[in-house]
Amino acid sequence: MKRYEILAEDIAQSIRTGVLKHGDKLGSVRQTSISRGVSPSTVFEAYYLLEARGLIRAKERSGYYVIAGLKKLPPEPEVTSRPDSSSSIVDVSRLVFDILESTRSRDVVPLGSAFPSPLLYPFDQLAKTMSNSHRHIDPWSTVDDLTPGNMQLRRQIALRYLVDGMHVHTDEIIITNGALEALNLCLFAVARPGDSVIIDSPCFYGALQSLERIGLKAIEIPTHPREGIDLHALAEAIKTHQPKACWVMTNFQNPLGSLMPDAKKRELVTLLAKHQIPLIEDDVYGELYFGKRRPVPAKAYDTNGLVLHCSSFSKSLAPGYRVGWAIPGRFTEAVARHKLTTSISASVPAQETLAAYLQKASYDRHLRELRHILSVQQSAMIEAIVRYFPEGTKATRPSGGYFLWLELPGHVNALHIHSQALSLGISVAPGPMFSAKRSFTNCLRVNFGHPMNARMESALSTLGKLVTAYRA
Amino acid sequence: MKRYEILAEDIAQSIRTGVLKHGDKLGSVRQTSISRGVSPSTVFEAYYLLEARGLIRAKERSGYYVIAGLKKLPPEPEVTSRPDSSSSIVDVSRLVFDILESTRSRDVVPLGSAFPSPLLYPFDQLAKTMSNSHRHIDPWSTVDDLTPGNMQLRRQIALRYLVDGMHVHTDEIIITNGALEALNLCLFAVARPGDSVIIDSPCFYGALQSLERIGLKAIEIPTHPREGIDLHALAEAIKTHQPKACWVMTNFQNPLGSLMPDAKKRELVTLLAKHQIPLIEDDVYGELYFGKRRPVPAKAYDTNGLVLHCSSFSKSLAPGYRVGWAIPGRFTEAVARHKLTTSISASVPAQETLAAYLQKASYDRHLRELRHILSVQQSAMIEAIVRYFPEGTKATRPSGGYFLWLELPGHVNALHIHSQALSLGISVAPGPMFSAKRSFTNCLRVNFGHPMNARMESALSTLGKLVTAYRA
Repeated sequence: MKRYEILAEDIAQSIRTGVLKHGDKLGSVRQTSISRGVSPSTVFEAYYLLEARGLIRAKERSGYYVIAGLKKLPPEPEVTSRPDSSSSIVDVSRLVFDILESTRSRDVVPLGSAFPSPLLYPFDQLAKTMSNSHRHIDPWSTVDDLTPGNMQLRRQIALRYLVDGMHVHTDEIIITNGALEALNLCLFAVARPGDSVIIDSPCFYGALQSLERIGLKAIEIPTHPREGIDLHALAEAIKTHQPKACWVMTNFQNPLGSLMPDAKKRELVTLLAKHQIPLIEDDVYGELYFGKRRPVPAKAYDTNGLVLHCSSFSKSLAPGYRVGWAIPGRFTEAVARHKLTTSISASVPAQETLAAYLQKASYDRHLRELRHILSVQQSAMIEAIVRYFPEGTKATRPSGGYFLWLELPGHVNALHIHSQALSLGISVAPGPMFSAKRSFTNCLRVNFGHPMNARMESALSTLGKLVTAYRA
Repeated sequence: MKRYEILAEDIAQSIRTGVLKHGDKLGSVRQTSISRGVSPSTVFEAYYLLEARGLIRAKERSGYYVIAGLKKLPPEPEVTSRPDSSSSIVDVSRLVFDILESTRSRDVVPLGSAFPSPLLYPFDQLAKTMSNSHRHIDPWSTVDDLTPGNMQLRRQIALRYLVDGMHVHTDEIIITNGALEALNLCLFAVARPGDSVIIDSPCFYGALQSLERIGLKAIEIPTHPREGIDLHALAEAIKTHQPKACWVMTNFQNPLGSLMPDAKKRELVTLLAKHQIPLIEDDVYGELYFGKRRPVPAKAYDTNGLVLHCSSFSKSLAPGYRVGWAIPGRFTEAVARHKLTTSISASVPAQETLAAYLQKASYDRHLRELRHILSVQQSAMIEAIVRYFPEGTKATRPSGGYFLWLELPGHVNALHIHSQALSLGISVAPGPMFSAKRSFTNCLRVNFGHPMNARMESALSTLGKLVTAYRA
C-alpha cells in the first residue's frame, strides 16, 4: 500500500468504527500533514480517495466532512474467492439466460436487472434532438455514416476523452451496435477458437457468454472488490497459459464495482505489453463515478496500440439506442472489417441524434444528476442491507456504477435464494452467473439503479428474511 | 421445362428476334389456348412469367402487350460458369474490402455500389414518423424492445408476409441489426468452424466474407441467371460434402438477379429437408419485384422448421436504419440467444419508427414508386449497354432488384477494367468478388439503382470503350 492509501484506510476505519461520525469535519490538509507527519500531497491524495469512495465530501471554502454517516456499515468483502487458475471451457450461457429471462417482466422487482431505471435518462430531450436533427436529414448520411461511423459523433467522443486526459484520434474510433458488439469484435480480432483468455473473477457474464460462443477458454483471475484484478496472479497465469488476450473492466467493474487505481492500470498495461498480450478494456461504467473526476481508462497508458478500449452510451445517456464504440489501437482495421462483415454499421438515426445531442451542454448536466441519484441510492440500499440482512453479510461500497456485491454469511446458496425470491416477484443476480467455474455460490449482485421506494424496501426486507431463514 | 415455361420461352424468343415488337398485343388467353393447343391456365402462367420478366404488361380490360420494345436486347448469359464442386477455404475479404472502400466516395460514379440511390427512400416521411412516435416515448421501451424486438414491428412484418401468402408467428421473428447480422447469426446457429456450406455461384460477397470470418468452407453451386441455383449440382454436392447448411438468395439474387420459380423453391426446400440440412434464405430483394406480386420466399414451403429466413428494410424502406429480421424456424431460440450475446438488440428508436411507419398505407405507395423507377432505370441501362458495349456482351434481364450481371466478350479481365475505370472515377463490381474461387473473371455487376443521368450515361460510354479497347 502507498502512504496515502494507508492514511485513507486509517481514516476510513475511524469512520467505520464510529470514531468519526456523519458531519464531522476532517483536519485541513496542512494540519493533517503536520499531525500525521506526511506530505500535504499525501493527505490530498488520501482525501481524494475517500471522497471517491463516498466517505467524505468537500464543501466549498470550508473543508472536508464525513458523509458516511451510517451508524454501522456492513463489512466489505475481501478477495471473495481465489479461483484456481486453471483454464475452463465456458458453459454458463443457459444458466445466465434462464436467470435474465426470468427478470425481464416489469412486475418483478429489478434487483437482479443489468440496467438502471430507464427513467433516469433524458429521453424527451433526445427525442427533441432527434426531431430537429432529422428534419433536414441528408439521405447520403446513410452511406457516410457507415462504419467507422458518423464523423461528428466520433469527434465528440474523442473530445470527451481529451477533457478526461486521454488523447484519441477520430480515425481510431469505430462506432458499433453498443459496447457488447464492440467487445465481441475486439475479442474476435485477437483470439481464435480454442485460445485462452484472461478474465477477472467474478466477471461480467456477458464476457463469459462471448467466450463460450466463440469457443475460448477462460482463465479466471481473482479480483479485489476495491482495486480490481490481482496483478500477481495475472503474471503467474501469463506464464502458465500463454493467453491470447485479457478482457478486464477497469472502472466500476461489473459485478464488484472495483475501481483500479491509476498506478495499477499503468502496471496492467505494462505487464501485458511486455508479453504482447492485447488488453480488451470494457469501460462502460466510467462516466458513472461518484468522485471528483472521471477515472482514466487503462487505454490512457497504452503506448503500443495493444489496448482495445470499448465503451457506449447505453449506461450514461441513451439505453436502447445501441450506440457504442471501440478504440482498438493496432487492431483498428481488423475490427472495422469485422464490423462491416458482421452488421455493416450502427443505426444511422441513433448516431445522428447522439452526435447532435453531445454538442449541447446538457449532457454534462444530465450526467451530474445521474451520478448524484445513483450515489444517494447506493447509500440508501446499503442502509437497507444493514437493516434487513443477517449479521455477517458483507457488501461492497463502490465509488461508481449501480451494483452492489453481497457476500452472504455461512453457506447460503445464492441460486436457491434466486429461485425463492423470484417466486415472490423479486429478482437477484446470483454469484455463479459471474464465473466460468460457477463459483461465488454465496454471493449476490444487487442493482441500486432503481428508486428506493416502498416496493424496493419491502423486497429487500423479504430478501433479508430469505437469507436469514436459509441460515437457520 | 414445364409446358408454360416452353410457351413463355417461345414468346420471349419472338420478342427478342423482333417478330413481336413493342406495343404489339398478344392473343387473349382463350385464343392462345386454342391456337397453341394448351390449357388456358398454361397460357395464363406463361403470360404471368413474361410479365414478371418485364417483357409484357397487362392493360386493364384490354389484354397483354409487349413492352420489351428494345430494338435489340443483348443476349442473356447462360449458366456463366460451372465451378468444380470441390469445397474451398474462403479468402476473398481483402479483395472485396479494397474494392468496396475504393467505391465509397461520392465523387465516384456508383456503378459498383451495393446500394441504390438513397434519394429513392422516404427519409422525410420517416423523420416525421420518428418525431411523432418519439414525442411521448415510453422509457420502458428500451427494455421491452430488446431481443426478440418491438412487438408492433414484428406484428407488422408478420402481417405483410400473410398478405403475400406466408404464415409466420410473431414469436418466430427476431429483429436484428440489418439482414447481414440476421444471416450471420443464423449461420452461426447451424455451422461450426471447419464445416462446409453450400452457396450459389456467383454469390453475394457478404456471404463469402461471413464464411471466411467464421472459418467455413464454401461449396459453390452453379446458378442460372434466371432461375437460380442448379438443384442437380446441389444434390450431387450434398452426397459428396455433407454440408452443414445451404445459404441461398432465392429472389433477385445478388449479383445475377435470378428469381427461383415457385416450384423450384419447393423442390429446394424438400431436397434439403430430406437430408436435414438447414436452408439460410437471404430475401432482402423480395419487395423489389417488377412483376405482379411479391415472389414468395422458400420459407413458405418450410414444413420442418429448417428454413432460416432473413430479410430487412434496408433495400425497401430505410437504408442505414439497420433494422432487419430472422425467422429461424426450429433455430429460433438459438438465434435469439446469439443475438443477445452478440449485440443485445437492434436500435430502439429505429424499431419504433419503422413500427409506426408500417401502419400507414404510404409504405405500399412508396414501394410501387420505387419498383417503377427501378424497372425504368433497368431498361435505360440495358439500352445504354447495347449502345456502348462491344458486340458479344451478354446482360441479365432480372425481373427485380437493381443489379445487372454482364458477361464480357472474349478474355476481358474484369479486375483490370475495375482498376482502369476507378482511375477515371467510375466504380464497377468485378466478377471475382462473387466467388470463393475468384471465378467470373470476365464478368461485371453493375447497379441500376441510380438515376440514368448524363453522368451515368457518360460513365457507361467510358466503360464500354475500356472493354472494347481491352479486346483489341
